[in-house]
Amino acid sequence: MSTQISEKELLLRLKPLLEISDADAALEILEEYRPEDIAEIFWDIELDEAKFLIKILDKLKAVEIIRSLDPDLQERLFKGYEPREIAEDVVSYLDSDDSVDILNLLPTRKAEDVLSYIDDQDYAKNLAAMLHYDDDIAGGLMAKELVQVKHNWTVSQCIEEIRQQAEEVDSVHAVYVTDEKNVLKGVVSLKDIVLAKAHTSVIEITNTEFIAVNAYATGEEVARLMNKYDLITIPVIDSMNRLIGRITIDDVVDFIKEEADKDFQLQAGLSESVESEDKVLILSRARLPWLMVGLIGGLGSSMLVSNFEMDIKGLPQMAFFMPVVAAMGGNAGVQSSAIIVQGLANNTLKSKNILPKLGKEFTVSLINGLVCSALLLMFNVLVGHGYDLSMVVSIALITVIIFASLLGTITPLILERFKVDPALATGPFITTTNDVIGLGVYFTLGRLLLGA
Amino acid sequence: MSTQISEKELLLRLKPLLEISDADAALEILEEYRPEDIAEIFWDIELDEAKFLIKILDKLKAVEIIRSLDPDLQERLFKGYEPREIAEDVVSYLDSDDSVDILNLLPTRKAEDVLSYIDDQDYAKNLAAMLHYDDDIAGGLMAKELVQVKHNWTVSQCIEEIRQQAEEVDSVHAVYVTDEKNVLKGVVSLKDIVLAKAHTSVIEITNTEFIAVNAYATGEEVARLMNKYDLITIPVIDSMNRLIGRITIDDVVDFIKEEADKDFQLQAGLSESVESEDKVLILSRARLPWLMVGLIGGLGSSMLVSNFEMDIKGLPQMAFFMPVVAAMGGNAGVQSSAIIVQGLANNTLKSKNILPKLGKEFTVSLINGLVCSALLLMFNVLVGHGYDLSMVVSIALITVIIFASLLGTITPLILERFKVDPALATGPFITTTNDVIGLGVYFTLGRLLLGA
Repeated sequence: MSTQISEKELLLRLKPLLEISDADAALEILEEYRPEDIAEIFWDIELDEAKFLIKILDKLKAVEIIRSLDPDLQERLFKGYEPREIAEDVVSYLDSDDSVDILNLLPTRKAEDVLSYIDDQDYAKNLAAMLHYDDDIAGGLMAKELVQVKHNWTVSQCIEEIRQQAEEVDSVHAVYVTDEKNVLKGVVSLKDIVLAKAHTSVIEITNTEFIAVNAYATGEEVARLMNKYDLITIPVIDSMNRLIGRITIDDVVDFIKEEADKDFQLQAGLSESVESEDKVLILSRARLPWLMVGLIGGLGSSMLVSNFEMDIKGLPQMAFFMPVVAAMGGNAGVQSSAIIVQGLANNTLKSKNILPKLGKEFTVSLINGLVCSALLLMFNVLVGHGYDLSMVVSIALITVIIFASLLGTITPLILERFKVDPALATGPFITTTNDVIGLGVYFTLGRLLLGA
Repeated sequence: MSTQISEKELLLRLKPLLEISDADAALEILEEYRPEDIAEIFWDIELDEAKFLIKILDKLKAVEIIRSLDPDLQERLFKGYEPREIAEDVVSYLDSDDSVDILNLLPTRKAEDVLSYIDDQDYAKNLAAMLHYDDDIAGGLMAKELVQVKHNWTVSQCIEEIRQQAEEVDSVHAVYVTDEKNVLKGVVSLKDIVLAKAHTSVIEITNTEFIAVNAYATGEEVARLMNKYDLITIPVIDSMNRLIGRITIDDVVDFIKEEADKDFQLQAGLSESVESEDKVLILSRARLPWLMVGLIGGLGSSMLVSNFEMDIKGLPQMAFFMPVVAAMGGNAGVQSSAIIVQGLANNTLKSKNILPKLGKEFTVSLINGLVCSALLLMFNVLVGHGYDLSMVVSIALITVIIFASLLGTITPLILERFKVDPALATGPFITTTNDVIGLGVYFTLGRLLLGA
């Protein structure tokens, strides 16, 4: 048993041996580590070292390592392999879901070549069929490997079937019961099979009130169902209710996380999911759209401020506080919208009644606005900015915080109603709007109260 | 089988019956729905209607509904129940992990009362022991219900043990093998038990290279291990390696999500996890700290701008573009830091080498800065702001976008190195810093180039 692993240590010990291609010494060290841990060091070794490492390990462990690699690393690694090698040394050893993930990383032509080198024709045909599904829907997430029994079998026939499929199906959590036409009739837990008498008819211990998903259900929907009903596996069916695969929870964990990640990205003004390892142009493309939104909003602000040119000329101090007013509006608005967006994403925001929310938001922002404004007033008077100007700045600050908070509350709820991702309201969109509105409030108040 | 459920429909049909307390008609409808679906309507019914609904249903289904409720709803519901009722009608029917979750929601005194009403003394003692663990560490997440066998048993003895524990342990995924001192020796999958011969010694089919967690491991650590090694369950041990419980994947899915949620909150400037249903003062407290940071930054900006009072007096147009420059710096900085923060959170950012990242970020921000600046220049010249001013604004914009992007890249990496949550760099902190720096660059350039 080991609960503590150190990739750094592995890397330090292994790297010199890889550099001199000392297979025996490397193998001795690798033996102490799990495939998942060895996979971690692939970030820090060269492609030819990675190939050497894969070559010297026994096939099963090597394939487990490849399976555990980050997709970026897999893609890089496979550039160094011929289709025949990928087919015979990797894909043939993997479950169908992992194989499809790998085939999806390859250029279409190369993926087809890999398929043509797979000996097991049925398996190749299955993979080809699975490639038709997008990788973010149930059909693209499922594995074909499952234990399937007929509804008129006995328990001992089921155990025999499990035995026969044992080599192909690594982990069995449930056995699927189908009729002659392959229509899914129910699910039996392994526990019930262990406990049942050998001659019992399997249909007697079958749970027919099961949950299944269609092959075209989205990954998010699969994640939602498995999360809600606490499922470890879920069967995938076609439009005729025929069993075509199963998804295990570990394959949808990423989708459970994805919703939150997507909100994070929208909030940060990224229009597509990017990583720092992506190419410059992809990174640039993901970021430009929201910078444009910010630019247009900024131009709006500048045109608005230009209407107050004479006020600024007369009282240049007005300009000093533009950044405070604009920034605080942005901050308060993002806070409000983030709370609503997260509530919508986590389904904790059930009551869609807007009015009480706005009332509460008004109270919260009034408190926070008063605290901030009072502090700002004290500071300004102490620094000697004059009482009138200081009052205008503080009144503008309260107004802007309250206004931005209400707007931040209402915008995601409206977006949700119009089926637009409410997280849009947490990004540059709301910040920019609040900039414009905040400055408008500030200068209008200034003109009214200071007669500047 | 049902894959489509409609809570709205259930609510519409049920609500009138709950209002007139028509048990028979309500039960007829409830029969068609799963506990998890019925739980959803608790958001929209009154406390007395909820109690009525729980009362008329059979105990097992009622308890399943309570288990599926959102913690907020559970807390509300239990206010209407006596400790004796909670003990006899709810906690006695639940697994230990779910019971502990519920006891944690109650005031300490009431939780102790509930424990005193539990008939099964062993169970009560177990629950009391589990309450000592925080609810976000392995000990607080684990359940005591598991199938445990001795290392010198045969497979048929194991099956007998599973049979005896079958009623207590709902779902069995693995069987845990221990020695006389209760020290965990290994894990056997149910599949291997099904396939083994009855007289086989269990130790022969035991996997001794298993992963376990200490009771004091954090929820995040448990989630990371289960995710990395694709585990469905993980045994929990004490410091003497004795088996004390097990955690199933569905109980840590929330922790997998939580990291992303936490980043989202930090980015939005929320200092604690809040929901829109929380009390006004809690909401206010979560938001004020970051508003303060924004306020201090804003005051910094205003002091900086005040140094350029004469420049503004001489050329008030300078003030028009303050919002564009400040906002674009904030936007670009948040984009950069969000990419790094997400890379760190998802472990895809393995190579900690900063220089190449900065080089790439420089290229990306140069491209985006050039595009934005060129557009801004065209606009400003067309609108008639004068070539000199327009050039200054555009040069400032490029400079600020590049600078903010580099700062956004480097800040989370530095925070991570000092063991501070890097997501701090995506929130008001970076926006505010960029405001100050951006305006400084802008006005300095203005003074240099316009001699204003």
